[in-house]
Amino acid sequence: MIGPDTPYLRVDVARLHANIDRVAAQAAQRGVALRPHVKTHKTMEIARLQLAAGAVGITVATLGEAETFVRQGIDDVVVAYPLWLDAASAGRLRDLTPDARVAIGVDSVEGAAHTGLLLGGSAVEVLVEVDAGHHRTGVEPARAGEVALAARRAGLVVRGIFTFPGHSYAPGATRSAAADEADALAVAADAVRAVGIEPRVVSGGSTPSLEASLEAGLHTCLDERAPDRAPDRGVVTELRPGVYVFGDAQQWELGTTTPDRIALTCRSTVVSHAGGRMVLDAGSKVLGADRAAYATGFGRLPELPDARVVMLSEHHAVVDVAGAPLPPLGTRVDVVPNHVCAAVNLVDALHAEEPAGLRAWSVTARGMNS
Amino acid sequence: MIGPDTPYLRVDVARLHANIDRVAAQAAQRGVALRPHVKTHKTMEIARLQLAAGAVGITVATLGEAETFVRQGIDDVVVAYPLWLDAASAGRLRDLTPDARVAIGVDSVEGAAHTGLLLGGSAVEVLVEVDAGHHRTGVEPARAGEVALAARRAGLVVRGIFTFPGHSYAPGATRSAAADEADALAVAADAVRAVGIEPRVVSGGSTPSLEASLEAGLHTCLDERAPDRAPDRGVVTELRPGVYVFGDAQQWELGTTTPDRIALTCRSTVVSHAGGRMVLDAGSKVLGADRAAYATGFGRLPELPDARVVMLSEHHAVVDVAGAPLPPLGTRVDVVPNHVCAAVNLVDALHAEEPAGLRAWSVTARGMNS
Repeated sequence: MIGPDTPYLRVDVARLHANIDRVAAQAAQRGVALRPHVKTHKTMEIARLQLAAGAVGITVATLGEAETFVRQGIDDVVVAYPLWLDAASAGRLRDLTPDARVAIGVDSVEGAAHTGLLLGGSAVEVLVEVDAGHHRTGVEPARAGEVALAARRAGLVVRGIFTFPGHSYAPGATRSAAADEADALAVAADAVRAVGIEPRVVSGGSTPSLEASLEAGLHTCLDERAPDRAPDRGVVTELRPGVYVFGDAQQWELGTTTPDRIALTCRSTVVSHAGGRMVLDAGSKVLGADRAAYATGFGRLPELPDARVVMLSEHHAVVDVAGAPLPPLGTRVDVVPNHVCAAVNLVDALHAEEPAGLRAWSVTARGMNS
Repeated sequence: MIGPDTPYLRVDVARLHANIDRVAAQAAQRGVALRPHVKTHKTMEIARLQLAAGAVGITVATLGEAETFVRQGIDDVVVAYPLWLDAASAGRLRDLTPDARVAIGVDSVEGAAHTGLLLGGSAVEVLVEVDAGHHRTGVEPARAGEVALAARRAGLVVRGIFTFPGHSYAPGATRSAAADEADALAVAADAVRAVGIEPRVVSGGSTPSLEASLEAGLHTCLDERAPDRAPDRGVVTELRPGVYVFGDAQQWELGTTTPDRIALTCRSTVVSHAGGRMVLDAGSKVLGADRAAYATGFGRLPELPDARVVMLSEHHAVVDVAGAPLPPLGTRVDVVPNHVCAAVNLVDALHAEEPAGLRAWSVTARGMNS
């Protein structure tokens, strides 16, 4: 299978299935619902696989993503984002509810009141976003009750609470982030109960913290940190990982996946040997420019694990091959993007490698930022 | 003008015109041809403005970009990239030549021979790419003659030489990069002449080095570095800047533009005040994740020049407002992307602010990576 002109994003469908099934089985075993974040793949074919494996619905980041997936038949969507609505966007949300269960985030008393003005009495529910230590959006856990109460008073149905423990994206931080997540959600759930609202959904999850959350974090961290709580009481009812379907170089370097599980690569071509290095035609316009502080380069090469992408521009990846023989000009080489969500959002189609050949999967929610 | 739902990219058309006209006038005054790199905007409306202001043709990075612009009527295109062709892509290039003058890059003897096998005898010309110190692609200047000779022997017409002085993207490096550019091109031009080929085009240019190249670099650096050459002999016949049409936070921080000249911003909305900071709905999926070593953040805010985007995820920009009052939730705020080429490639349309209102310009070459 030669495939299209390079660079293009190629999906190893067997690995994709294995990743989806493994996490689905782990969640089922622990009795935790999965609501995968589809911003990673933005692709209906993959969302369908996740639902078939038992996901209770999907998570999206934007209203446009929600519309794209509901239009294609998905009937349960959470926008895990504190949307600041106006009349038009509130109308778009309401228009989804005949076809789907819909919830959005709120993370402040003011936001809850504003959302209530636009959506109060509608079928759109809200989840209170809590900050578990990532320090992006989300209210302090102990104040989640105030936000929930403001939402209820504004005519909204409060479904529960959610957090994103994104500080799991650091070396060695996966277990502590999972512990923070469980702790924050426990505090927030109690705060919401204290105002007389039962959180039906208590939602967490990031790909790096996923195994820790499932294996131990949901339970034992409470034991360690809040000894007055029953040690076997599960806090989290739902997890929302996204990246796990593919994996990427960030997960590889964090140790939360292995190269043999990574299901998406950018197929590229060696176009130059200038300066004794290998230059590929895969640049930031197909890989994305993400480079976390812990990253050792701008992507990794499964066939040359010691090589590093030392320089990335829009259409060039300059690779130091670490003393290996330079692959000849014209050789096709696979690169694993640092952050797969960014790479997928740059292309109109993924090329899925199936037994019968390559099949194009349309990235239908690409570019849906609003 | 409220405009569409945020985040979206907004073009200040008056500033865009001023940037295009200023650089066109500077180039005309120095007798240097302009062949702007349209990878920055990927938009026919802006390419037309550049051509109307005197550009001799356009520069692109990929075959798909070339096809997009030729199909819309542009008749002179250089693919400033050492394309590694196969029969299919060579056919696509040949198919452009009834409608347009077309040239592509080669940067090695082997690449020239390979290109000749596929394009020898066709109307597609080649330019030898030279490394002026950026150390990405390009042959050493002194060896440009070998590559040119290999191309001619393989049946190709050698139009000339080109370089990209991308090492101008560093604080204080604009003048030295312009000097390196002129030096490398002078050495390469002599090397090509030494094998009996007259380079009709000697092409350089990056936005940071542009003013230095035009004002002094093309001439005086030869005087300083090669005293045996006539000091007033211009080396460069053509420049290929891209970013100058808009400017971006990189150019602002390098000092090669000023905030009042920046013609593209991302209009966003304040969605949260979590942690006492301002969180905007403009993330890496609309701004791009580029962050050069010298960048002070992930983008800049013209109305809050002391503020910094301290954290960027796919749909969140967390802004430290440096002690200024927090703009209320729901406020619309403009962000200047670090690297405008990356931002434009994330959207299907730019929203051009014209006296009559906002007009959508289609980013027709978005995602054309191959």
